[in-house]
Amino acid sequence: MHEHTPIADGKAANRSGRLADWDGDKAAAFLKQAANLLCEHMASRNDLTQPVVRLASPAELAVAFTEAGVPLELRVGEDAASMPRLLAALGATLEHSVRTAHPLFLNQLYARPEPAGIAGDWLTVVANTNVHTYEAAPVFTLVERAVLARLAVLAGPSWAAAHDGLFVPGGSIANMYGMHLARAVVDPDSASRGAAGGPCLVAFTSAQAHYSYLKSARVCGLGSDNLVAVPCDASGAMLPAELEVAVEAALARGGVPFFVGATAGSTVLGAFDPLVELAKVCRRHNMWLHCDGAWGGACLLSAMHRGLMDGVELVDSLALNPHKMMGLPLQCSVFLARREGLLQSTNSSNADYLFQPDKLHADMDLGDKTIQCGRRADAYKLWLTWKALGDAGLEQRMDRNIALAAHVEARVVASGGAFQMVRPRSFANVCFWWLPRALRPFDAAAASPEQLTALGKVAPALKMRMQQSGDAMIGFQPLDGLPNFFRLVFASASALRFEDLDALMSRMDALGLELFP
Amino acid sequence: MHEHTPIADGKAANRSGRLADWDGDKAAAFLKQAANLLCEHMASRNDLTQPVVRLASPAELAVAFTEAGVPLELRVGEDAASMPRLLAALGATLEHSVRTAHPLFLNQLYARPEPAGIAGDWLTVVANTNVHTYEAAPVFTLVERAVLARLAVLAGPSWAAAHDGLFVPGGSIANMYGMHLARAVVDPDSASRGAAGGPCLVAFTSAQAHYSYLKSARVCGLGSDNLVAVPCDASGAMLPAELEVAVEAALARGGVPFFVGATAGSTVLGAFDPLVELAKVCRRHNMWLHCDGAWGGACLLSAMHRGLMDGVELVDSLALNPHKMMGLPLQCSVFLARREGLLQSTNSSNADYLFQPDKLHADMDLGDKTIQCGRRADAYKLWLTWKALGDAGLEQRMDRNIALAAHVEARVVASGGAFQMVRPRSFANVCFWWLPRALRPFDAAAASPEQLTALGKVAPALKMRMQQSGDAMIGFQPLDGLPNFFRLVFASASALRFEDLDALMSRMDALGLELFP
Repeated sequence: MHEHTPIADGKAANRSGRLADWDGDKAAAFLKQAANLLCEHMASRNDLTQPVVRLASPAELAVAFTEAGVPLELRVGEDAASMPRLLAALGATLEHSVRTAHPLFLNQLYARPEPAGIAGDWLTVVANTNVHTYEAAPVFTLVERAVLARLAVLAGPSWAAAHDGLFVPGGSIANMYGMHLARAVVDPDSASRGAAGGPCLVAFTSAQAHYSYLKSARVCGLGSDNLVAVPCDASGAMLPAELEVAVEAALARGGVPFFVGATAGSTVLGAFDPLVELAKVCRRHNMWLHCDGAWGGACLLSAMHRGLMDGVELVDSLALNPHKMMGLPLQCSVFLARREGLLQSTNSSNADYLFQPDKLHADMDLGDKTIQCGRRADAYKLWLTWKALGDAGLEQRMDRNIALAAHVEARVVASGGAFQMVRPRSFANVCFWWLPRALRPFDAAAASPEQLTALGKVAPALKMRMQQSGDAMIGFQPLDGLPNFFRLVFASASALRFEDLDALMSRMDALGLELFP
Repeated sequence: MHEHTPIADGKAANRSGRLADWDGDKAAAFLKQAANLLCEHMASRNDLTQPVVRLASPAELAVAFTEAGVPLELRVGEDAASMPRLLAALGATLEHSVRTAHPLFLNQLYARPEPAGIAGDWLTVVANTNVHTYEAAPVFTLVERAVLARLAVLAGPSWAAAHDGLFVPGGSIANMYGMHLARAVVDPDSASRGAAGGPCLVAFTSAQAHYSYLKSARVCGLGSDNLVAVPCDASGAMLPAELEVAVEAALARGGVPFFVGATAGSTVLGAFDPLVELAKVCRRHNMWLHCDGAWGGACLLSAMHRGLMDGVELVDSLALNPHKMMGLPLQCSVFLARREGLLQSTNSSNADYLFQPDKLHADMDLGDKTIQCGRRADAYKLWLTWKALGDAGLEQRMDRNIALAAHVEARVVASGGAFQMVRPRSFANVCFWWLPRALRPFDAAAASPEQLTALGKVAPALKMRMQQSGDAMIGFQPLDGLPNFFRLVFASASALRFEDLDALMSRMDALGLELFP
């Protein structure tokens, strides 16, 4: 290695002739103050006396930011703000944002981020590196490869033997990668010829699958008509026999079945498609089996729960979202394929301004495999979090989320009619109604249209009331003709105790009776 | 607004019954230490006595991390690391990563991030919010709308009158959005029917366009055969007459021309396609005009340079990458369309578990427009940076980069033969050779194959030598049969002085003569 002799010595920032911007010291001082403010916020994140949200309308927020000296809009001729004003902007943002790290933020499939995940993400922001080439991102390239290798081991021996993968911006894009690779395998000419003039490819997902399959089918030029929603059982899991029927029907129409998008942990019900059975159908019809494990894939971390994904060793590609149950900050998403070289052969552009073979260690470059160019070092925060928690810590995290869900289910069942399960709990999803007295017990099959309409109004009203008081945030939705129900999901609930959930349910019951006496 | 009465009071983290993970105080303490380390690093970023990179092979890095107590690989049964070890990991990462904020990191189209951009990004990590719904992301939703509106004003009156847009993960994806929307307009049935059985759509880009158009054409099912590379003039700008010829040829083959992917600031040469002329061809043939302004779009900030994008008011969609010349941390990318409602109608899934109409302020939700589900609040860091620098600061930044490029060009021209321009400079791209004495002056047209081969080896060797000594990082590539040349790009070079560049060129010359005496 050659010695570094500076081209010019001294601090460029402190010398004349340069643009007057913030020098290193001033930048560092500002960042330190910003960090203090963020760390203070972190220190209070378990504080249940804080509201989850200080609900405000767009107009109210506009006033609040203007009063803080940093109007939301960017005007033409906008002046440079002082450092105190910028810090005020950060403060106002934290104050008026939803506290997703609050123990009672139970609204989405993401929640409180792990401290090591935050620190890792902060570093990637400062390092500001694109993980396209080893030369620009030596550490991040190796870290990404290490994390992908560990995830492959987690998925089982068939994955560890041969895998390929990438960190990608979200589970939806990961699912799109699966569809795109599947097409490249079944119809390799499509890369040059395009889909027009080619076979009519047909994909299959469950009726409970995530909407990203639909969006991907449109983006990829497959078309929503060629994305078949296969019926599910009562738990929300795809029925293999129905898949077989759907495939035969597609064949009879002259279609070419090529892709099954399975789901491990569906969004609403937390259902797991039976991968072993689906793999049999796929083998029979030469279809690619992708598994959307964005939500449920974290079960692989747990000896107790990984059986939910039996058959994962048979799937061809897999989407994982560590920013969900593994507690990483958004975004941290993974696409894995069980075939080496396919990402490269499908996506390579061989851009010779970037992936020059006459560069040092160019064989390590990851960038030519992607459909992006710029790509964040999202693997790094997961690497650091894995180091921080260890395998046991991650498993404990996972098991705790399920235990909390099981506790709520038990309380619903024991509630004597005030609460009622919509379906038995699956994974960390608890779907239930709070019922006004007049509707107890609720029988959806026997309910009148008026009763269905009445119940459909309960969850939105109750949720709004809890949002307004900042108590908690819990999602709701209708499903399959059933009126709006609550979906309590435990994505990152390690700070929650069983008794906090008991208190939450008591509050819901009290507010419900207040709203619907 | 209702009062918030806590469901349970006191700190959940400090009470029994919860999972033993880091409580708020411990998390905050760790983050504070991590922030200190990162701020120290920031404080030294202008220090030219630091090498740009401490070049190491994958094997050397593996040893270094093991010696730091944090091996790169994640083993099965990995233990939880102590806080000091995690901090050591952060330190080792900074030490062995490329210092992209170093004034002499001139390798890529991104470089040193603005401090306000870093602070903004850090906040979004802590807030950990998905900008899909107003209810989960009230501030970030309004901020995204405000920044998009300001960018529309920047693009001109026709944009301010009607625009739609999103922050997306990278310029490549932004270009894909353009292609996807264009198809939705010209062949609306494709969303359901798919591309198979539909018209053979044909897209056009310049021969100098970014590879993302190619990748998008494959992903979208268009096929690379239906992406026509239109010839360019010597500067690298698309020739409108050649576009017309290519369109006619596509029509003659039975194709349906639908999309022109223009480039404002090409990757290697910094060329700008003539938008006014291209728009005429597009109007004539009813094609969508998208402009990839990922690199050059920043010229809109400058009164002096925005003329480079004359005609931007005529394009249908636009990709911008504030993480390039605006100095935002990766990623910060924008897609803008000059038609309201099209993103929604093209991408909507109306997922009723997320975009419930019976929710507060659901009309503000951005998530149903995207092809993602999870999406980072990348608009926020740009908003904060805009507040920090003001319009004038952003313009100064932009102008300074061009001035530095112009300075290098002048030095090359005045070098008396040691350096030679490949093409006249365009924008902030300076493409030049350093020539061994035997090859001066270099005439590519008259050069022998041996001379071309010999010159092709110069830039890689010289770059490697500079990388090894940590002097500077500068990209190189071949182009159109011309042997490898250096591409000096000024993406975020506000800490560089003219004399630093003079010193850099002297160093290159000295090292060149050492390597090729």
